[in-house]
Amino acid sequence: MKHYGDRVEDLVITYIGGGSRGWAWTLMSDLARAKDLSGVVRLYDIDPQAAHVNEVIGNSIPHNFRYQAFDDLASSLKGSDFVVISILPGTFEEMASDVHCPEKYGIWQSVGDTTGPGGIIRALRTLPMFEVFGRAIRDNCPDAWVINYTNPMTLCVRTLYQVFPGIKAFGCCHEVFGSQALLGRVYGEAFGTEPAPRQEVKVNVLGVNHFTWITAASCRGQDLFPAYREFSGKLLSEPAKPIIRDEHFSYFASQDRVKSDTFLRYGCMGAAGDRHLAEFSRGAWYLKDPETAESWGFTLTPVSYRVEDRKKKLELSEEYFTGKQPFQFKETGEEGVDQMRALLGLGDMVTNVNLPNRGQIPNLPLDAVVETNAYFTGGKLQPVMAGNIPSTIYPQIANIVAIQECVADACRRRDLDAAFCGFVCDPLVTVTASDARRLFDEMVDNTAKYLTEYKR
Amino acid sequence: MKHYGDRVEDLVITYIGGGSRGWAWTLMSDLARAKDLSGVVRLYDIDPQAAHVNEVIGNSIPHNFRYQAFDDLASSLKGSDFVVISILPGTFEEMASDVHCPEKYGIWQSVGDTTGPGGIIRALRTLPMFEVFGRAIRDNCPDAWVINYTNPMTLCVRTLYQVFPGIKAFGCCHEVFGSQALLGRVYGEAFGTEPAPRQEVKVNVLGVNHFTWITAASCRGQDLFPAYREFSGKLLSEPAKPIIRDEHFSYFASQDRVKSDTFLRYGCMGAAGDRHLAEFSRGAWYLKDPETAESWGFTLTPVSYRVEDRKKKLELSEEYFTGKQPFQFKETGEEGVDQMRALLGLGDMVTNVNLPNRGQIPNLPLDAVVETNAYFTGGKLQPVMAGNIPSTIYPQIANIVAIQECVADACRRRDLDAAFCGFVCDPLVTVTASDARRLFDEMVDNTAKYLTEYKR
Amino acid sequence: MKHYGDRVEDLVITYIGGGSRGWAWTLMSDLARAKDLSGVVRLYDIDPQAAHVNEVIGNSIPHNFRYQAFDDLASSLKGSDFVVISILPGTFEEMASDVHCPEKYGIWQSVGDTTGPGGIIRALRTLPMFEVFGRAIRDNCPDAWVINYTNPMTLCVRTLYQVFPGIKAFGCCHEVFGSQALLGRVYGEAFGTEPAPRQEVKVNVLGVNHFTWITAASCRGQDLFPAYREFSGKLLSEPAKPIIRDEHFSYFASQDRVKSDTFLRYGCMGAAGDRHLAEFSRGAWYLKDPETAESWGFTLTPVSYRVEDRKKKLELSEEYFTGKQPFQFKETGEEGVDQMRALLGLGDMVTNVNLPNRGQIPNLPLDAVVETNAYFTGGKLQPVMAGNIPSTIYPQIANIVAIQECVADACRRRDLDAAFCGFVCDPLVTVTASDARRLFDEMVDNTAKYLTEYKR
Amino acid sequence: MKHYGDRVEDLVITYIGGGSRGWAWTLMSDLARAKDLSGVVRLYDIDPQAAHVNEVIGNSIPHNFRYQAFDDLASSLKGSDFVVISILPGTFEEMASDVHCPEKYGIWQSVGDTTGPGGIIRALRTLPMFEVFGRAIRDNCPDAWVINYTNPMTLCVRTLYQVFPGIKAFGCCHEVFGSQALLGRVYGEAFGTEPAPRQEVKVNVLGVNHFTWITAASCRGQDLFPAYREFSGKLLSEPAKPIIRDEHFSYFASQDRVKSDTFLRYGCMGAAGDRHLAEFSRGAWYLKDPETAESWGFTLTPVSYRVEDRKKKLELSEEYFTGKQPFQFKETGEEGVDQMRALLGLGDMVTNVNLPNRGQIPNLPLDAVVETNAYFTGGKLQPVMAGNIPSTIYPQIANIVAIQECVADACRRRDLDAAFCGFVCDPLVTVTASDARRLFDEMVDNTAKYLTEYKR
Repeated sequence: MKHYGDRVEDLVITYIGGGSRGWAWTLMSDLARAKDLSGVVRLYDIDPQAAHVNEVIGNSIPHNFRYQAFDDLASSLKGSDFVVISILPGTFEEMASDVHCPEKYGIWQSVGDTTGPGGIIRALRTLPMFEVFGRAIRDNCPDAWVINYTNPMTLCVRTLYQVFPGIKAFGCCHEVFGSQALLGRVYGEAFGTEPAPRQEVKVNVLGVNHFTWITAASCRGQDLFPAYREFSGKLLSEPAKPIIRDEHFSYFASQDRVKSDTFLRYGCMGAAGDRHLAEFSRGAWYLKDPETAESWGFTLTPVSYRVEDRKKKLELSEEYFTGKQPFQFKETGEEGVDQMRALLGLGDMVTNVNLPNRGQIPNLPLDAVVETNAYFTGGKLQPVMAGNIPSTIYPQIANIVAIQECVADACRRRDLDAAFCGFVCDPLVTVTASDARRLFDEMVDNTAKYLTEYKR
Repeated sequence: MKHYGDRVEDLVITYIGGGSRGWAWTLMSDLARAKDLSGVVRLYDIDPQAAHVNEVIGNSIPHNFRYQAFDDLASSLKGSDFVVISILPGTFEEMASDVHCPEKYGIWQSVGDTTGPGGIIRALRTLPMFEVFGRAIRDNCPDAWVINYTNPMTLCVRTLYQVFPGIKAFGCCHEVFGSQALLGRVYGEAFGTEPAPRQEVKVNVLGVNHFTWITAASCRGQDLFPAYREFSGKLLSEPAKPIIRDEHFSYFASQDRVKSDTFLRYGCMGAAGDRHLAEFSRGAWYLKDPETAESWGFTLTPVSYRVEDRKKKLELSEEYFTGKQPFQFKETGEEGVDQMRALLGLGDMVTNVNLPNRGQIPNLPLDAVVETNAYFTGGKLQPVMAGNIPSTIYPQIANIVAIQECVADACRRRDLDAAFCGFVCDPLVTVTASDARRLFDEMVDNTAKYLTEYKR
Repeated sequence: MKHYGDRVEDLVITYIGGGSRGWAWTLMSDLARAKDLSGVVRLYDIDPQAAHVNEVIGNSIPHNFRYQAFDDLASSLKGSDFVVISILPGTFEEMASDVHCPEKYGIWQSVGDTTGPGGIIRALRTLPMFEVFGRAIRDNCPDAWVINYTNPMTLCVRTLYQVFPGIKAFGCCHEVFGSQALLGRVYGEAFGTEPAPRQEVKVNVLGVNHFTWITAASCRGQDLFPAYREFSGKLLSEPAKPIIRDEHFSYFASQDRVKSDTFLRYGCMGAAGDRHLAEFSRGAWYLKDPETAESWGFTLTPVSYRVEDRKKKLELSEEYFTGKQPFQFKETGEEGVDQMRALLGLGDMVTNVNLPNRGQIPNLPLDAVVETNAYFTGGKLQPVMAGNIPSTIYPQIANIVAIQECVADACRRRDLDAAFCGFVCDPLVTVTASDARRLFDEMVDNTAKYLTEYKR
Repeated sequence: MKHYGDRVEDLVITYIGGGSRGWAWTLMSDLARAKDLSGVVRLYDIDPQAAHVNEVIGNSIPHNFRYQAFDDLASSLKGSDFVVISILPGTFEEMASDVHCPEKYGIWQSVGDTTGPGGIIRALRTLPMFEVFGRAIRDNCPDAWVINYTNPMTLCVRTLYQVFPGIKAFGCCHEVFGSQALLGRVYGEAFGTEPAPRQEVKVNVLGVNHFTWITAASCRGQDLFPAYREFSGKLLSEPAKPIIRDEHFSYFASQDRVKSDTFLRYGCMGAAGDRHLAEFSRGAWYLKDPETAESWGFTLTPVSYRVEDRKKKLELSEEYFTGKQPFQFKETGEEGVDQMRALLGLGDMVTNVNLPNRGQIPNLPLDAVVETNAYFTGGKLQPVMAGNIPSTIYPQIANIVAIQECVADACRRRDLDAAFCGFVCDPLVTVTASDARRLFDEMVDNTAKYLTEYKR
């Protein structure tokens, strides 16, 4: 790349999973708006045709970046400045097992890609892939910044650092933004103004991805927690709105009731959406069964929906590819490109990311990947000291981090028995240990073709 | 005290809870055998008559110590060399609530004084008492060694250090000895010898009291884990022996099946007895109901048994007191007096104790009280570096330690809502959060007279 | 105070040392420019007349703040929002001993208020005062933000946290700004532009106050170290400019030769000015004698100069006070008021401050006060993880931090013998241990009236 | 090996540096006394003839071990149970440069193999050799216990762990024994008994090898520090005994005056001999020149003496080899074989060793090699928590540890400039930085044939 003080040319961005129809298009939208950047985006995908389609789509957009499909990982990485990783590990068939197989045992998951039985089995097949990525980055572009969007986020980032300790990788997630926006609305209501934009809501964030907590929030000098306490009390004093599967229905919607319930109990605000918070909670609380979930104002996302949704995206992709329809820019709300700009020295920022714990959360183990605010500036990314996990939420977070450490260690050793030790302690796994083992074995069998490296 | 190189005279030992009919008599037995020690034992108890009875009993034993009852804590501590704390916090009435109240909610506890709903509510009433003890020790005998036997062990010791960071306190527990003895028998079987005495079984111990784990065990140079793995497999290949409530029946017996089951899963050996291990495990595993417990070869100890048992001890006490029967020495198997001797420079030893974490277990939070081996030598007690909690058992231990930290913090702030945050995450609490709160409130109400300092 | 989202009224700022003619006027200048702040500045000083004079001067300036002199510390602090501490501990008479007494032993100091014999003896008399301040803040305004400018900075801040661990104190110093400005000029030269303003020079800062190091620097995306290496080589290839005591002469000027010399040796850039860097270095290097110092392009600041300078300031003060001359606003270049604004939620910033080590520098001891960047935002101040001290500069910094820990501990215990253990290891103290003791005793005698609490 | 519970047969011990005439013979003596051990000692040496000679000597001793010379490192290590490393890095020619070259610059060293200019340059040539050893152990006997005796001890052990983090290595040194023996005599004097044997003197040891400190000492329950304080005062109240080079003269003798002087200053007792303590102290204190050393009761050991001494040992070796004289058993006072026995499960022990800091000294950096007590038991070696370095001795130790970390890092990167950053901060290096560089370059040139891997 060439740096001109106020703009950068010849930037090389490698996108692993570059055939995607979600994040790849988001990146295209955001890069098209970044007038101070230009260069090439290399699209690597195990589905070369998908990468090719995105190459054509990307190049159809009038902006400063060229797109180029690659079918070899090493070549796609050689000399890169940034690497974006956003893959689907396995297919929706495996994901269907992750999400729905536990239901037979009375274990329900709202998402199933981060934690719980689904998240753990997904980790088993994903982490060996991330070992490959980490080594390829070490060998081809050791100085590149690496941004991961793949779930399970925490364990993916953990793995990159395990195989290449010198990697400059971090994990990004937009879940906290939604809570900031909610607090911005709470601010507006409490102080009789327009809702404050989320960027003006200052939060201290700590925890692990999708189970991140806000321990302090202010806007324009005002502590927002008293207002949010009132808001939460009022919200819970009325019953949940019934969930109606009409044209406005979304599987991703929530009524923030879990967030309010946990805030009133713990005094800290769950930073991720209710669907995630619920999954990290004990099975009996919010995910006893689909009806319990609905009584808390959210629904479970079936993998069938994802299959259907992808079909639509493939159609849209075809339209873009053939030029029947021009590429649609969206207000993505994502920060990835701004983070790149900050790391290039084009404007500092502080936002939440996933990084190995170097002490930013002193009462969590070192090296575990945690989510806190970090300071992005020219050439450096440094976590902000977030402080100890407050004691009220410490039991749940300590448990989850330890499960993740257990699973990470088991994956590294390709040891299913060791992975089960984490699985059986997951808060959603409320069954007997022997039933848990049966479930585990079944889920492993269902996804066996991705688990061939593990000793059985 | 006066030290003569090979013996110590004029030792002052204060016994808080000195009216006890269990540990106090054990101490008398062991002191009577310690020919190189002499001095006075001061018996302080909130029941002055009980202390008086033990004074008479103690003085009836021909040995080097005099016994003296005290009804004022400060006077009993003034200038002491050792302080022993072994109290019953509240009465068996409160303990009955601790142990049995949760049963209505389907929550069963085998012991109920360490962890689970019972352990947590017991902590609420005990820790303020330990704040009093800690301050009294600071003011009257800051240099004394303080040995705690009271449960919940971890939180009692934690509290002493919180109110007086300079205290020289540690917590003692004999549960590990049983596992050493079991391993000694396994050694004998495997190598065709007599069972090895427990002192020859060298173990690395780590965790928290009653949920301590052995990560390595050897005897006479032999790694004992392969033999114990075989032993465990064989044990579990046969059904549990039926529990018959005949004259041989003991509420404290177990068949070590939980120990074997967890060893085969985790590769580490639970160091405490099955009744304790079961209580720290998820509710669905070993304590679903009394029948499940029996299928694992152990029973739940009802408080009614303890009431009955005390009645017998009171009768025995009366016999001792009136001289109808001479004091019965027992082979106690306890190490308290040997530990005193070691600290006095009369013989080093390495054994397991409870101490604040200064780094002896790097992946648990600093200052939390943990159990590991420690080196006792003249004037010093130093933990031995036990290493990280192995990843397979880390989820459970991290969860428990965090609950204990949460409860300790809540007690210090006299905040019941904060204590509930630990309560609701206890592995035995498998009910909904609102049911958990109802249970918590009921248990608090039942023991309200000991909780007057807490804000409701 | 009252917060209106974009401005704050009724702010209460207490200034300890409020009779000062330096920092107090700087604060007045900066507050006068802060259009979004209004309130009262309470001036506390042990010299009530000096505070009174500043009250009159402050109130003569047309702006949003009123000034009020206090002669009672507690009253001045009651309910404050911010506390500024900037005092002269003792008088210039004591400072003359600190700086010049060691010269008889061949020990020369360029400043003498931070480190070296002078800094250590100054600490002995200053820290007990800071214990008083810390306790008064705890009792009167525990939630106030406390900004310290007094030297020895590190030990003053350390002491505040020792007596009141919950204090929200930090130490500010502008030394790093000069290095940023220098790098801004280096940027301009290297890239053929105007000098970059210091705010655009992004640095990672770590170490202790006045011995802070820049381990990475960039401007507009460019790594500045290659250019600074070239700059340094060139600078040192020519002899130092002779020091001429004409009307342009300043005791505070330097030619940045020490900075260049150390950069070429260590690969890290000393962030403080040469006069400070030299004082933390071994005595033989830059401060062998006044001539050596001049050969490195800087001079030693005699206390006589400070006495003279104060005389001029007192005259100016008189003019302000009597209204003969209106108050002169200056471009102060200080950040204190901006930091206040950031903490009030009126604009985030990242800048370097002194705070207890919570892990922001993992290879320095916890709780020692260190200087790194920190993130100022609404209601929160959080250090940015600065990383380990690089190995090349670790020996010097580890030594200094340990000396400071030793002196802090000695002051807390009022133990001169213990303080000497730090003194004798100071890098400037090149004499025999017995000569060092003679010097120490002499310096203690010279300042004895401020050391009455110490056991001799 | 085969373990029979109370004895071990077929033990394989590899001796790297097996041609030595000092430690190798000591090992032979001690193994000959260990009736419960038998097996083979493999002697590897870069001088194959020396190894062969020792093979013959070893086999001439009637005991349970056979000796076998190896000229290939890998073969000698294959399947070993214990590895002993005791080498001379380079020849006495290099050592002569290490020790005497600095004298021209007024820098005097009493030993010159651990610290100071000599120790650092010795490290430069030694650590690459230890990288080779570490990798060979990893590849050939990863489970072996590795005992190092080579200096610079700290950095040798550090390097083994750097190249093979899973290594079970520790460093042994007998210096502490002498202080225990001295304290045993002090005990006898103070309490009117025979001197206590050193094993009965219980000490808490912390620091780095040869600069280890005793922070507490007791014998038979008595605190020994009051008696040692009196002893030290008396010792120093009289002038040093003149050093007379008669037939009783030894270069290794000392009068313990440095130990007393530092004890009175710091309140902690230097655990190594005066010759070592002096070398770690500031140059002006005890090693200003040979006369100063003598005034403190010790002398500098010239390398010429070592050359002479070796000549005598070679003659003795020839006598043993040819059978002219039978091998002379000595009371070695070393613990190596007892440590082996403890690790084999033949008797626990607690003694001081060098191990990576895992937290046993919380205020020193993790992973630096430190010396503390450790617990040796069957299959395990665990440091005992020694606590923080006391503040009075912290400045010196923190400085030394940081220099060692700096040099270790420089050696790993083969970077002489980086190594100089440690060299120039050594307490003995009292000269200007440019003179220090000249000396450094000269010493590097003198030993250049061992430093070919370094970039210049």
